[in-house]
Amino acid sequence: MSGQITIALDAMGGARAPATVVRGANIALRRFPQTQFMLFGDQSQLQRLLKRRRRLRKACTIHHTEEVVRDDAKPSVALRTGHRTSMRLAIDAVGDGAADGVVSAGNTGALMAMAKYVLKTLPGIDRPAIATFFPTSRGESVMLDLGANVDSDAENLVQFAVMGEVFARSVLGLIQPTVGLLNVGAEDVKGREAVKTASAVLRDSDLPIEFHGFIEGDDITAGTVDVIVTDGFTGNIAIKTAEGTARLYTEFLRQAFKSSPFARLGYLLARRALKKLRAQVDPRGYNGAMFLGLNGIAVKSHGSTDALGLANAIGVAIDMAKGGINEKIKEEFQRLALARENKWRAVS
Amino acid sequence: MSGQITIALDAMGGARAPATVVRGANIALRRFPQTQFMLFGDQSQLQRLLKRRRRLRKACTIHHTEEVVRDDAKPSVALRTGHRTSMRLAIDAVGDGAADGVVSAGNTGALMAMAKYVLKTLPGIDRPAIATFFPTSRGESVMLDLGANVDSDAENLVQFAVMGEVFARSVLGLIQPTVGLLNVGAEDVKGREAVKTASAVLRDSDLPIEFHGFIEGDDITAGTVDVIVTDGFTGNIAIKTAEGTARLYTEFLRQAFKSSPFARLGYLLARRALKKLRAQVDPRGYNGAMFLGLNGIAVKSHGSTDALGLANAIGVAIDMAKGGINEKIKEEFQRLALARENKWRAVS
Repeated sequence: MSGQITIALDAMGGARAPATVVRGANIALRRFPQTQFMLFGDQSQLQRLLKRRRRLRKACTIHHTEEVVRDDAKPSVALRTGHRTSMRLAIDAVGDGAADGVVSAGNTGALMAMAKYVLKTLPGIDRPAIATFFPTSRGESVMLDLGANVDSDAENLVQFAVMGEVFARSVLGLIQPTVGLLNVGAEDVKGREAVKTASAVLRDSDLPIEFHGFIEGDDITAGTVDVIVTDGFTGNIAIKTAEGTARLYTEFLRQAFKSSPFARLGYLLARRALKKLRAQVDPRGYNGAMFLGLNGIAVKSHGSTDALGLANAIGVAIDMAKGGINEKIKEEFQRLALARENKWRAVS
Repeated sequence: MSGQITIALDAMGGARAPATVVRGANIALRRFPQTQFMLFGDQSQLQRLLKRRRRLRKACTIHHTEEVVRDDAKPSVALRTGHRTSMRLAIDAVGDGAADGVVSAGNTGALMAMAKYVLKTLPGIDRPAIATFFPTSRGESVMLDLGANVDSDAENLVQFAVMGEVFARSVLGLIQPTVGLLNVGAEDVKGREAVKTASAVLRDSDLPIEFHGFIEGDDITAGTVDVIVTDGFTGNIAIKTAEGTARLYTEFLRQAFKSSPFARLGYLLARRALKKLRAQVDPRGYNGAMFLGLNGIAVKSHGSTDALGLANAIGVAIDMAKGGINEKIKEEFQRLALARENKWRAVS
């Protein structure tokens, strides 16, 4: 793959769109000067926003549409009736091979439904998963699934483990990432059946996965493993609980600094350091939910994020394209299929 | 009930037992001077620890046993072979009516198995649940189940909702507590079947429960509802994820204050306020996992907590006994059964 990457942007998705999307693309372009953008959305608004951004304008093509997927639209309805929406057209650009990846801050369910329909899943993968980064005391980890599948069986969990491991290698650049299964205890006897079965499969498999075993909720931020595997119900609740806890802590911290003149003065002195802290726990820095398992790159940006968050989501899509993630997932699943076939032959 | 409450203590459970347990009882006695303690454990160690604590000694009886439940013991094995352990004898004291409640910092699974066997569940309750407090920006909430049941069906969730609501009324003193079901989205169409069915039952029921509907992970710390209902798998992972996130934030904060001389000076000035913050997020303040649905009061203290945490767990058991929680749960389930019978009559 040459250095140039083309990203299709759903310019009308998310809060304060399309302004936030255009500003996000502008920041991303400074970081990745070789990127080309296809902007899908209202032409006149986009032209106005690009007017004073000469460099970005040169890197963009505008694809006009008046239709958008509403935030409260049902995924099934969006899929059936949204053929001319900015989201769908941006996904189609990846399906057609015109773009290397799509980024949208719009309706998550609709994006998943459309991306699944247009891009299809990679061979060997039953269900795509949503993955994201998580800050830990050792750096960052990847966690999946975060809500694509409210019920996941053992086979789904095994597939998530394989996809997450490939992601950590090809996008995070880890040599031998460790993988853990989220459970209610570290012992083998504990937990749900699906989790226990998946653990047995990952232990026995001939895959070159560094399987750590079970981990618990507090292992997520401790950085015990690089890849955290769970079903979409639990993963969604875990990540939102972590967000809420960080927000509560920030609120308590703000109250503490306001509580006395000494504390206020202390805040002024420590301000620079505290700004750095805020950046460390800033969800915008970790923005970007990756859809893994599709035959094409799709990244969901948080709907309420700002330009910086959107730029990070675009950066994730570019990293995935550069890392050739889907080719690597395909190879890994071929390997998995072959290993299973051999095992079957050995048994029979 | 007179003012006097008797608490049975598993003196040998948890880290640094029995010293931590005795010190915890000492703190609790200062807060609740009318309390009597039954200490189950090694007599000579306990006598030595009580030697210089005259007031506590007067409020205690010692019940010698040499056996303890090991932290790594399987619940089923502990139940079968642990009849003479400090944990089992403390539970038996509640079963016999000698004590109003039992507190242990030992093996959670064994405590639940033994408490279920000895105390039995209250009429109408299929499975007991583990509940705890959660700090929120509005004060504190109650959350259940936290791990007693890795799989919960809709009926279990409804029962957890009823028990949690009674707890919030009788122990937290709330007049009309709100109840929410943890899910991956606020809309009715989202989530697992069990959660959707439980929501429909709680909406339709004639119970005087203030049912809020679905909540998401970040609503837990936002204090959106007073009682958070979920299955034991999700609840266990959510609470441990929150603990881990708070720990990570504290670590980042410590690093920030060490990063420059200005920041260090700022820390010194804001120290008092930051101490208050630490108390706000201190898990010891929220220590005590309540077993709800049993015909007797049982509270699990965190195994690695200190005397202050143990005193808080004892305080929770005392509050539950004073609030007459189990009588109220029984009444509520009679009401639920009656409402269902009437509905059935109306239909047939």
